Amino acid sequence: MQNLKIILQYDGSRYDGWQKQMNTSQTIQGKLESVLEKMTGQPVEVHGAGRTDAGVHAEGQTANFKLSEEYYPDQVLSYLNRYLPEDIKVLEISRAKERFHSRLNAVSKIYRYTVDTLEKKDVFQRKYVYGLGQSLDLNKMRQAAKLMTGEYDFLGFCSNKRMKKSSVRTIYWIHIEEQDGLLRIAFCGSGFLYHMVRIMTGTLIEIGLLKRPVSDIKKILETRDRQNAGFTAPPEGLALVSVSYEEN
Amino acid sequence: MQNLKIILQYDGSRYDGWQKQMNTSQTIQGKLESVLEKMTGQPVEVHGAGRTDAGVHAEGQTANFKLSEEYYPDQVLSYLNRYLPEDIKVLEISRAKERFHSRLNAVSKIYRYTVDTLEKKDVFQRKYVYGLGQSLDLNKMRQAAKLMTGEYDFLGFCSNKRMKKSSVRTIYWIHIEEQDGLLRIAFCGSGFLYHMVRIMTGTLIEIGLLKRPVSDIKKILETRDRQNAGFTAPPEGLALVSVSYEEN
Repeated sequence: MQNLKIILQYDGSRYDGWQKQMNTSQTIQGKLESVLEKMTGQPVEVHGAGRTDAGVHAEGQTANFKLSEEYYPDQVLSYLNRYLPEDIKVLEISRAKERFHSRLNAVSKIYRYTVDTLEKKDVFQRKYVYGLGQSLDLNKMRQAAKLMTGEYDFLGFCSNKRMKKSSVRTIYWIHIEEQDGLLRIAFCGSGFLYHMVRIMTGTLIEIGLLKRPVSDIKKILETRDRQNAGFTAPPEGLALVSVSYEEN
Repeated sequence: MQNLKIILQYDGSRYDGWQKQMNTSQTIQGKLESVLEKMTGQPVEVHGAGRTDAGVHAEGQTANFKLSEEYYPDQVLSYLNRYLPEDIKVLEISRAKERFHSRLNAVSKIYRYTVDTLEKKDVFQRKYVYGLGQSLDLNKMRQAAKLMTGEYDFLGFCSNKRMKKSSVRTIYWIHIEEQDGLLRIAFCGSGFLYHMVRIMTGTLIEIGLLKRPVSDIKKILETRDRQNAGFTAPPEGLALVSVSYEEN
């Protein structure tokens, strides 16, 4: 039994997200599992570090799966890249310890949200940005981002009302940069709740548009009420950039 | 009568190139002209600096057109961007002198060809690169590029056998760079013949694969015979980057 760890990129535009659902849905996990089943002749379960939503992209999603027979990792990588569609690509593969689990062992993740502030979206980025078409007050957004940084109960930034487990997470940093009309907001955190990055982004955008004050962040964290937060920014602007693990 | 100059970008994937052809074809020129006709109520002829082939992209195509009534340039830009599809975007607009012609007055153009040398194409670049999947000898390619630089009769790098006009052009420089498996070849020249960049690229690729010697460049320039040159690299890797005019 070998446990393989892969790092992969995908254009999420035409997928129903990472996680396998009904038989009819198109998911990244489903695509990977069907190619691995074709290769091994057996069902293979693939675990992903981040369960990206429908339409969300990844530049460095991490996943792992166990194979009952021995394969050369490079051989598996070639096979996957040959049979996966052109919008999913495995970048790296390596042997992992038997107990390694890409989601349970992840210590931090970086997501990036990109907003196009110009009148029309850049042609070459159009599938990977949210076309807002309005300029934003970066200073106000950075002040708000600072208030989101730290260990908090982020339930107010979560779409799932019935969280059974803890909704406490740590945001290590949020960086906001603008270049040629493209605003990039990068979030590094211990973990993210359902829709958390997109609701944080929507709230930051409303603050950047001066539709709400910076101090709303405190109110959302204190009341833990999603009604107090901003809109859920659309999926196409979001990408899972990377996942980190403890060195062993 | 006002003469307007525009700079535009487009994803050429789903177009039959720049130049208007039959009524049924989808071309960039045709799209621009139909939106301008909708705006003015009259037919408008748009002149492009580079007649890009089917599937070729542009980051800085330049074009001009005359309007019989006065419009604010910004108003024309907004109108165009609103009614053009999302894969064509006007970046800049300005008033030009009455005699300005985007193609006839161009003094140089830069084209860039991108080759993905990795086993599978980068997911986010897949529509804008040629997937070669093999590594290339950059030194040999740079030596060959040097031999292409200068004023020559480039008929051997032209798909049109019956050139009536001169096929002498000047290549000012060719830069070749590689990063993360993506090889970018940028060509700056006084002008380019039909398929010239793509045949130069195909020949450089064959030299980089060690399928032919660097000295073939001299032979092609001397014999002016397209049979001696390499394959025509596919359109999706090519982009018109910018067009330069003399300052007045």
